[in-house]
Amino acid sequence: MEASIKITDQEFQSRADQLLNHLNENNLSGVVLFESHYILYYTGFAFIPTERPIGFAMNSKGEKSLFVPRLEVEHAKANALISRVDHYLEYPDNPHPMGVLKKMLDEMGVSGDVGADHDGYPWIFGYRGPSLTELTGATIHNIKAFIEDQMMIKSDAEIALLKESCKWGNLAHMLLQRYTEVGLTETEVAQRACNEATCAMLDTIGPIFRSQSSWFSGAVAMYRGQIGRTSAIPHALANNITFQAGDALVTGATAPVWGYHSELERSMFMGPPSDDQKRLFDHMVALQNTAFAEMGPGKPCSIVDKAIHAYFEKHDLMPYWRHHTGHNIGLRYHEAPFLDTGDHTEMKPGMVFSVEPGLYSPELGGYRHSDTVLITDDGIEMLTYYPRDLESLIIPV
Amino acid sequence: MEASIKITDQEFQSRADQLLNHLNENNLSGVVLFESHYILYYTGFAFIPTERPIGFAMNSKGEKSLFVPRLEVEHAKANALISRVDHYLEYPDNPHPMGVLKKMLDEMGVSGDVGADHDGYPWIFGYRGPSLTELTGATIHNIKAFIEDQMMIKSDAEIALLKESCKWGNLAHMLLQRYTEVGLTETEVAQRACNEATCAMLDTIGPIFRSQSSWFSGAVAMYRGQIGRTSAIPHALANNITFQAGDALVTGATAPVWGYHSELERSMFMGPPSDDQKRLFDHMVALQNTAFAEMGPGKPCSIVDKAIHAYFEKHDLMPYWRHHTGHNIGLRYHEAPFLDTGDHTEMKPGMVFSVEPGLYSPELGGYRHSDTVLITDDGIEMLTYYPRDLESLIIPV
Repeated sequence: MEASIKITDQEFQSRADQLLNHLNENNLSGVVLFESHYILYYTGFAFIPTERPIGFAMNSKGEKSLFVPRLEVEHAKANALISRVDHYLEYPDNPHPMGVLKKMLDEMGVSGDVGADHDGYPWIFGYRGPSLTELTGATIHNIKAFIEDQMMIKSDAEIALLKESCKWGNLAHMLLQRYTEVGLTETEVAQRACNEATCAMLDTIGPIFRSQSSWFSGAVAMYRGQIGRTSAIPHALANNITFQAGDALVTGATAPVWGYHSELERSMFMGPPSDDQKRLFDHMVALQNTAFAEMGPGKPCSIVDKAIHAYFEKHDLMPYWRHHTGHNIGLRYHEAPFLDTGDHTEMKPGMVFSVEPGLYSPELGGYRHSDTVLITDDGIEMLTYYPRDLESLIIPV
Repeated sequence: MEASIKITDQEFQSRADQLLNHLNENNLSGVVLFESHYILYYTGFAFIPTERPIGFAMNSKGEKSLFVPRLEVEHAKANALISRVDHYLEYPDNPHPMGVLKKMLDEMGVSGDVGADHDGYPWIFGYRGPSLTELTGATIHNIKAFIEDQMMIKSDAEIALLKESCKWGNLAHMLLQRYTEVGLTETEVAQRACNEATCAMLDTIGPIFRSQSSWFSGAVAMYRGQIGRTSAIPHALANNITFQAGDALVTGATAPVWGYHSELERSMFMGPPSDDQKRLFDHMVALQNTAFAEMGPGKPCSIVDKAIHAYFEKHDLMPYWRHHTGHNIGLRYHEAPFLDTGDHTEMKPGMVFSVEPGLYSPELGGYRHSDTVLITDDGIEMLTYYPRDLESLIIPV
């Protein structure tokens, strides 16, 4: 990873400029954002949301400010793109911190018609407080849709970070597969794989690396309880199952790189699969190939999922269907748009999707590969590169 | 851990009955909840929130239902307390899933004046959809304050789970301290401690254990970058620092047990501290003792934090002050009320607080112990029990 592979201040500024254009085009006097992923996207300021409200504001002149607790002042002031940092001592404190935000917005001229992601800081971790409407008397316009539309299209720098994420997710997955053995538990195997992959990642790109993830601090690969019959539960919660011969397995791997996440998942087997298991595996690979074939710029997302539904129906597989084909991915694990029959958003170059049609049988277990796929000017590019064929995914018993 | 140490269906029902009383007292026709922690609290149904909306509803007769995607139907139907499970195929799907919720609420008679935690499913992970107001025409009353007031007071079963959490957090922390050495990195040390503590916990209580945590799947202990000078940043994000002689350290440890989290943090040193470091450590311990002395039933939370402020001022330490004394803790890491000068909530038996006054110096690093403390009928009970004295917290170099 070259030192240049990160988001530059210039790129953060360019993102904020697009938001500013949107404000001006819609006659909004400014914007107030509370969600950490949005604030990270426009400013590079990463934080963990708690009961202490944090907000980002920009007025129609493009002046940017942060509203933070005392705890975060030094961190916020280190940000080159922010011209103003206002702080309160603590939450709930006396008076309530929102008085500081109101003063900041007043002084910046953010009033009247204002864009926001939430009408006030969300009530998380015990926080309670007024809505922006109550606080300021402003008319709040929800601009989440604009923001998420903007975040959908990844820049070259973002794609480079996603590719870096794929590398370390691949390593973690390779180790997960290598260390999986009959008689071991999923927890000990996953932890060994995660530890070694994370240490390798940190030693390789460590000096310039920040995870900036709400979910993970390093490379991860795991089963999340999707082992044997419970692999039929697509979002099982891990339960430290012991591997047995004949188990169908479903994995998951990623690595956060400056907040960006790729997604790699594989169906695997403990020893040779039965004929019935092999049949579902083969259908699953064929489904993923069907999705890849339908993806590309200029087409609606829904066309991909419709082709998947058609395959399920043609082969009489609907009892095994559980979920749509995939989701956009980046700073958040799941982002809009979705590869779903109901999402008619046009696929555009720079969008990055998970592609993960799955089959689930209470008797035969779950079958799902997930790959991270970029829409390019003339088609698609696979960002993940782990083997997909059956032979590569059978663990010797 | 005895098999009886978990939340029984009877206790979930009793929680829901209290919510039902609140609905009836306030002439609400029902309640709709979207937050995973609230749904877990009233039903025991644990899930990971995504773009696929999930909701819980109860009408004024106490009939309980879940609204879920196809993916979660089997999981939802396994819940003995839920009489009705309505599902949609997928998000965004066609038509939008919220039509299914509207039909469910109509049929249950949840209309007119309705309690809710959010006016519609929050727009997370790319979800977009109508507010409850737009969807149903109901008048939505925010009942988060009632719910969080109810969650503040822990039952005997909840306290037992928090004590179980303390045990495994203690083990993880003991191993973290034992494995910390000059020249090693925080990541390798923390991972070794977490792995071994988690495997021990799962082998000990595994057959009946579920983490049900949004944050952790096992016992954890870590530094989060709070090493040497960066220990002065209270919520530093981990950066794989190498331990050096003379470093001041701040740790954090917990273990999720059926969703309940305790909190254990310690100031430690790589080798004997300097006189200046020792002075700040001694003040920190005295501050924590000051907080313990002020805690007890019938007094306002603010009194504890005011005593801490008074100590800071008396000893001319305000430049080192960064945050309030503590927070309630349970299903969420941070819950209301807070040990904060502005929180006048009365301390009551069954409340459980983190107690963690801290001192932070850019030159000398950060100093913070955090213990988990129960308010009892006649005082307090320490739930964490890790050594607090200086001698026990110096790592030989």
